[in-house]
Amino acid sequence: MKNLISVHDVENIHHLLEQALMFKREPLAERSLGSGKKLGLLFMNPSLRTRVSTQIAASNLGMECYVLNVGADNWPLEFREGAIMDGSNVEHIRDAAPVMGGYFDLIGVRTFPSLRDRTLDYSEHVIHSLMKYGGRPVLSLETATVHPLQSLADLMTIREFLPEGRRPKIAMTWAPHVKPIAQCVANSFSEWICAWGQADFVVAQPEGFELNESFLCGARVTYDQKEALEGADFVYMKNWCSYRDYGRVHGSAHEWMMTLDHLKLTNQAKLLHSLPVRRNVEVSDEIMDHQDCLAKNQAANKVWAAQAVLAEILKGQILA
Amino acid sequence: MKNLISVHDVENIHHLLEQALMFKREPLAERSLGSGKKLGLLFMNPSLRTRVSTQIAASNLGMECYVLNVGADNWPLEFREGAIMDGSNVEHIRDAAPVMGGYFDLIGVRTFPSLRDRTLDYSEHVIHSLMKYGGRPVLSLETATVHPLQSLADLMTIREFLPEGRRPKIAMTWAPHVKPIAQCVANSFSEWICAWGQADFVVAQPEGFELNESFLCGARVTYDQKEALEGADFVYMKNWCSYRDYGRVHGSAHEWMMTLDHLKLTNQAKLLHSLPVRRNVEVSDEIMDHQDCLAKNQAANKVWAAQAVLAEILKGQILA
Amino acid sequence: MKNLISVHDVENIHHLLEQALMFKREPLAERSLGSGKKLGLLFMNPSLRTRVSTQIAASNLGMECYVLNVGADNWPLEFREGAIMDGSNVEHIRDAAPVMGGYFDLIGVRTFPSLRDRTLDYSEHVIHSLMKYGGRPVLSLETATVHPLQSLADLMTIREFLPEGRRPKIAMTWAPHVKPIAQCVANSFSEWICAWGQADFVVAQPEGFELNESFLCGARVTYDQKEALEGADFVYMKNWCSYRDYGRVHGSAHEWMMTLDHLKLTNQAKLLHSLPVRRNVEVSDEIMDHQDCLAKNQAANKVWAAQAVLAEILKGQILA
Repeated sequence: MKNLISVHDVENIHHLLEQALMFKREPLAERSLGSGKKLGLLFMNPSLRTRVSTQIAASNLGMECYVLNVGADNWPLEFREGAIMDGSNVEHIRDAAPVMGGYFDLIGVRTFPSLRDRTLDYSEHVIHSLMKYGGRPVLSLETATVHPLQSLADLMTIREFLPEGRRPKIAMTWAPHVKPIAQCVANSFSEWICAWGQADFVVAQPEGFELNESFLCGARVTYDQKEALEGADFVYMKNWCSYRDYGRVHGSAHEWMMTLDHLKLTNQAKLLHSLPVRRNVEVSDEIMDHQDCLAKNQAANKVWAAQAVLAEILKGQILA
Repeated sequence: MKNLISVHDVENIHHLLEQALMFKREPLAERSLGSGKKLGLLFMNPSLRTRVSTQIAASNLGMECYVLNVGADNWPLEFREGAIMDGSNVEHIRDAAPVMGGYFDLIGVRTFPSLRDRTLDYSEHVIHSLMKYGGRPVLSLETATVHPLQSLADLMTIREFLPEGRRPKIAMTWAPHVKPIAQCVANSFSEWICAWGQADFVVAQPEGFELNESFLCGARVTYDQKEALEGADFVYMKNWCSYRDYGRVHGSAHEWMMTLDHLKLTNQAKLLHSLPVRRNVEVSDEIMDHQDCLAKNQAANKVWAAQAVLAEILKGQILA
Repeated sequence: MKNLISVHDVENIHHLLEQALMFKREPLAERSLGSGKKLGLLFMNPSLRTRVSTQIAASNLGMECYVLNVGADNWPLEFREGAIMDGSNVEHIRDAAPVMGGYFDLIGVRTFPSLRDRTLDYSEHVIHSLMKYGGRPVLSLETATVHPLQSLADLMTIREFLPEGRRPKIAMTWAPHVKPIAQCVANSFSEWICAWGQADFVVAQPEGFELNESFLCGARVTYDQKEALEGADFVYMKNWCSYRDYGRVHGSAHEWMMTLDHLKLTNQAKLLHSLPVRRNVEVSDEIMDHQDCLAKNQAANKVWAAQAVLAEILKGQILA
């Protein structure tokens, strides 16, 4: 693996999953693979879970980790080619990226969507500029449109709770929220489940909240949440704002909030959420506190997901 | 020791003190005790002294340390059970705590008082929630009502300067300030001195600035600063806002500021302050710059206090 | 070397340069020199390049590094002797500095100029107070008037691209900017080039933008940019606000922006900039993207500059 920007960078998803599960059993199995290697983590948006899990993963591989909490406000970068920089942006990515490439062997980056300019967000210009000008492998720590480490951790969690002897049904259901939330976790989960190919996958959302088709890879899409939940073995609960009417929040969809009544429709489903969750808005307390809710497992698995990906990139560098 | 929330978690205060003094002489005496263990430090209020001293202590024990500077504003947590989270709080402690417990072996936390809602502050709901839902030993790095690592460092400093062959007199005197300051350092110092039991202890403050009795453990309390200072071997100088009229600042108590004239009343007392100090408001320049002022010794001893406590918790885990 | 505040602390600039170049070839040549030593990095102004390069340098020497991002606002320090601290400053440098000296073996600090009070800025009171009260070697990570690690990295870069068999001409030319920028990089570059003594050095700037003479060490100064650029082997491009009319920004000097036309005047000059750079304001895109632009080399060399300086200070401590 050269970079991890999305599932499309993964050569063999089954092997990657097995590696992540192997690191969970043996965290220090490759403790000198990253020896002498420096990982720079560039956060343009704050992070706690992703930052800490990636730091632990790097440490388990013997890498040194350097965190740059830049924020969109305190280090405003210019991305437009040819810009006359007489405004508020203090540095161009064409200058900043090679500097990071000079310090670090690998660069992780978290960017964020505007949720106003869909074309710009979906162009993923930030991470592509970093790849173009940084000259180093780049690891996504969440971008405007996808969140591959989250998805790998999600898939690991599903893999750990698979029903025996049959193909599972996975439902991803839209959930209500009070603020505009990016589509990246949902887009990415869909891509990874499709690439994995071991499940029947259905996505349910209200009218107007359909995801961009290119991430759905032909998954079944429905406006009927009940139909999606019926017989499901896994339910991924997640809010996202409108892609069609970009950034719009649904004002009145309380009935989409996951409750015990919804759970009854499923096949005693395991319940997934990427966190943070707005309790009793997205998901009811009963669901979050249910013994079948795997949200904390997903968060814990982020360490092993990051470790498997870092190991693949390091091995790719050694071979290169 | 399972957790360190207050002095009540300490099994043998004399042994803990000796351990702290031992680490001061031999910082690397237990350099592999924490090998492979991860300490998460969660700061809901900024910290420099406590953060750095705890990081050094962890490093001396071979632990890895991960700092989460969350702040009350940038990661607003919900603590109310059953809350409908449609406001500004983005995550419930019931979800955040298990995630931290998944990443770290021990969790240190600094919380802060509102200084408006006394009942809420004195319930210490933040650290108790973290203990309840995190599933890991918790180390207080200062909370609304107590600051045990500071107190252990304070006590170590006293222990290093004990007069020979007699029981010392320790006076804690309230000092003026321009802003509302928490009672935690004073509450905690009182608890620890009482638990130590090797000194005569008196607390002096103006009318209306009495501490909560449960922290005084029967210590002598007086409104007469002179009486408290007379013959004292140690003087702890500290401001706190009113407990009774919760959060109130004393507007006109300049005569309580420690000066050389006050010092003359004492038995050539050693002078203690937890820092930061407002010079010439709480304490005069002459006192802070006096050769008998031990404020910087107290700050330096925070490393060894944290190291002794971390070592006790680690040993408790190994035995468990 | 006891401290590094400016070039005047350097005993042998040629030896220091060779050390920096040696570390570039062999990063781990002295990997245990700093073993058990703690470096505290105190940022009163944010930093990315200088922080990360110094952290990597410390790691290469086996030192532990502790970062304190204090900012001017979130930890307002008092520097005035005898101040009655009833305002917004919460701690006096006389108390804060010894605490840091208690935790760290070496202290790095970045301070910043007000660009309003020239006398205060040029007194460098912050770093001098830290040296006076901290009791530890102090390493400048940029102060109000100089930036010695940047200058050493700049000089290294020049040293790597020296023309053979003749004395080079180095021109430093003022560049336009939209905001008031400190004089420290320019002051410092001038001091270091003069101390190095191996080049003809000329500084060009518009009327009213002359640097303080004490940093020019007799360098030739001109108001004619073309004359400065003619035949130059190296061109350092840098904005600074007015020293004379302290803090003033030049409103209309677009013709000073470096372009390919300016470059033609030189002797195929190598182009230097300390970054960040405002493209098409200070310097044109064509210049920044030119193969002879060494800005990213300068940034990368900051690691080796810091490493050479830290090694000198550590060796000085061992001998002391």
